[in-house]
Amino acid sequence: MSTNRIERVLDNLQRQGLDQMLVCDPMSIWYLTGYYTEPYERFLALLIAREGDGARTVMFCNRLFPDATGAAQKLVTFDDTQDPVPLVAAELDPSKRLGVDKKLVANWLFPLMDAHAAAGFELASAAVDGARSIKDAEEQRLMRQASHTNDEAMNWLAAQVREGVTEHEIAAGLLGEYRRLGAQGHSFAPIVSFGANAADPHHEPDGTVFHKGDMVLFDVGCKQDSYCSDMTRTFFTAEPTAHQLEVYETVRRANEAAEAIVRPGVTFAEIDLTARHIIEDAGYGEYFTHRLGHQIGLEDHEPGDVSATHDEPVQAGQCFSIEPGIYIPGDIGVRIEDLVIVTEDGCEVLNHYSHEATVLEV
Amino acid sequence: MSTNRIERVLDNLQRQGLDQMLVCDPMSIWYLTGYYTEPYERFLALLIAREGDGARTVMFCNRLFPDATGAAQKLVTFDDTQDPVPLVAAELDPSKRLGVDKKLVANWLFPLMDAHAAAGFELASAAVDGARSIKDAEEQRLMRQASHTNDEAMNWLAAQVREGVTEHEIAAGLLGEYRRLGAQGHSFAPIVSFGANAADPHHEPDGTVFHKGDMVLFDVGCKQDSYCSDMTRTFFTAEPTAHQLEVYETVRRANEAAEAIVRPGVTFAEIDLTARHIIEDAGYGEYFTHRLGHQIGLEDHEPGDVSATHDEPVQAGQCFSIEPGIYIPGDIGVRIEDLVIVTEDGCEVLNHYSHEATVLEV
Repeated sequence: MSTNRIERVLDNLQRQGLDQMLVCDPMSIWYLTGYYTEPYERFLALLIAREGDGARTVMFCNRLFPDATGAAQKLVTFDDTQDPVPLVAAELDPSKRLGVDKKLVANWLFPLMDAHAAAGFELASAAVDGARSIKDAEEQRLMRQASHTNDEAMNWLAAQVREGVTEHEIAAGLLGEYRRLGAQGHSFAPIVSFGANAADPHHEPDGTVFHKGDMVLFDVGCKQDSYCSDMTRTFFTAEPTAHQLEVYETVRRANEAAEAIVRPGVTFAEIDLTARHIIEDAGYGEYFTHRLGHQIGLEDHEPGDVSATHDEPVQAGQCFSIEPGIYIPGDIGVRIEDLVIVTEDGCEVLNHYSHEATVLEV
Repeated sequence: MSTNRIERVLDNLQRQGLDQMLVCDPMSIWYLTGYYTEPYERFLALLIAREGDGARTVMFCNRLFPDATGAAQKLVTFDDTQDPVPLVAAELDPSKRLGVDKKLVANWLFPLMDAHAAAGFELASAAVDGARSIKDAEEQRLMRQASHTNDEAMNWLAAQVREGVTEHEIAAGLLGEYRRLGAQGHSFAPIVSFGANAADPHHEPDGTVFHKGDMVLFDVGCKQDSYCSDMTRTFFTAEPTAHQLEVYETVRRANEAAEAIVRPGVTFAEIDLTARHIIEDAGYGEYFTHRLGHQIGLEDHEPGDVSATHDEPVQAGQCFSIEPGIYIPGDIGVRIEDLVIVTEDGCEVLNHYSHEATVLEV
């Protein structure tokens, strides 16, 4: 149990006027207690409550889950024949409002409300997400390590491109390479896109066969010691046309300009708009169809995106992606993505794989 | 869009006094519309509303998702800079209560409530889950196909057991075998347990090395043409001791007795208790630590479990697992699991792999 992290959550809750919260996101529970299990449809929660000057913590676990002894001050277990709702209600202060995290599903929220288990219910995810957002020194070290592995894996990916290979074949081999490099798995399903497939930013690898001249996009990430990496590079496999190069260099300029302005106090929106305006000014605005980036850490996508409507200033210790793209259906798709950690006076770019327009030898 | 399935959901809703429902479970949306995407933290929903004698359907999709044109009568799209809540509210009848499915997360439910988007909010998953629970003829064919593949895969698994192999190595090879057999992937992470590891029903394959004499448990399932299989077998690799054989035969009798009583009208609880009493009577009651089974179909675990507290009668067309087990920590774990489909006068067992105590040649 991380007393330090729980204190930060309680402080955040207090600012929202709350003294108790039910945390359900398994990864947030891991962050706060060191206990992880994926509950699927079963109930798993950590209650955090202010008690005097300290914290009271209670874990609620199905007895089928791995033993959670020690993860919280108190452990409440139940089996599949028991309704966990009364057990939770018994630990709550019904005279106070309850904060719940955003992942609590209606299946449990409605019964808790029907049982009047608290004086009111409200979203309080920001209290945990805000704590998770600021990576401490050890977390930063692990983010760096996972991105280093991802840089190495990009070398391997680039070397797999050859006449006749399919997207699926390259994607299927990546897990083995990640493991060889010390990671435990993917942080998300890898994207391998040949030619015009890259114009769909969420293309899933399929049986598309590579032919020399196709552009190739890799958007991949590993999970290593619980932390995620995420990087995109787009390669040429023949001398680019003027049009291809213009698209590529526009995306590259957008990426680098956005990375250059990151420092505490700059807003997420300003970072997004810095990249977006470069793409718009080049005449491709309508083809940049997504936000610039997302926060990342224990999960590939964490709350607080890098988008034009997110007006909060970034803070030292936050880690997020910078991933501008241009997607012209049936023609071309280019994305260049790095992770950055905000430092006291700028940012550290975690990916060191080159942004240069590169023609692979195939 | 399946008009037939949507009508069944609307009929179920009407019995609950509801005329409108927001479906969020991606698999339920697929079931009703043929459109599938995994939205992660983004908003995806299908609104189903009674309109006169018919149905009104509206899909809400982030523009990053694959195009959903045709999946519903009306498509409402938005991007990452837009809040979907007002768009949903605009399509709801605020004078009526809204049914929501159990997977709607607090992140969207609270804002909809705060916006007074409906006259009230309540859980209505049973309307969709009840429809999904009864498999039609085509779905039954696909369930049979996926279990046939799983039977074949069990032959392959049994053949992999040899001195020195690790749980992880066998588990890692299964995906290739499933693909060779025509399936697309796992329906859940495969369980491969050697020796006393099998006494943890949710053991994850690790580096444990097989030695002749270890018992071996495989709990595996594939996903083929969208439908899931799920089967467990436990093998000997040397002549069993009397104790081992007694545990094994107790589980086997529990499995077969439960399968023998399944027919429309028998309750889920009666099926669970039939198996449970056999295990209790043999003196192992405390070591059967989970429900007897779960429904299955598009997902490996579907609502409506086979447990001692589920008093509803089973209906023809329902498909579920029968998976009694005995888990004695540090000693032995045995589970024997089949899928069954309820027929008009009994049930069809989808798995044909033998229940006989089997000593593998290793």
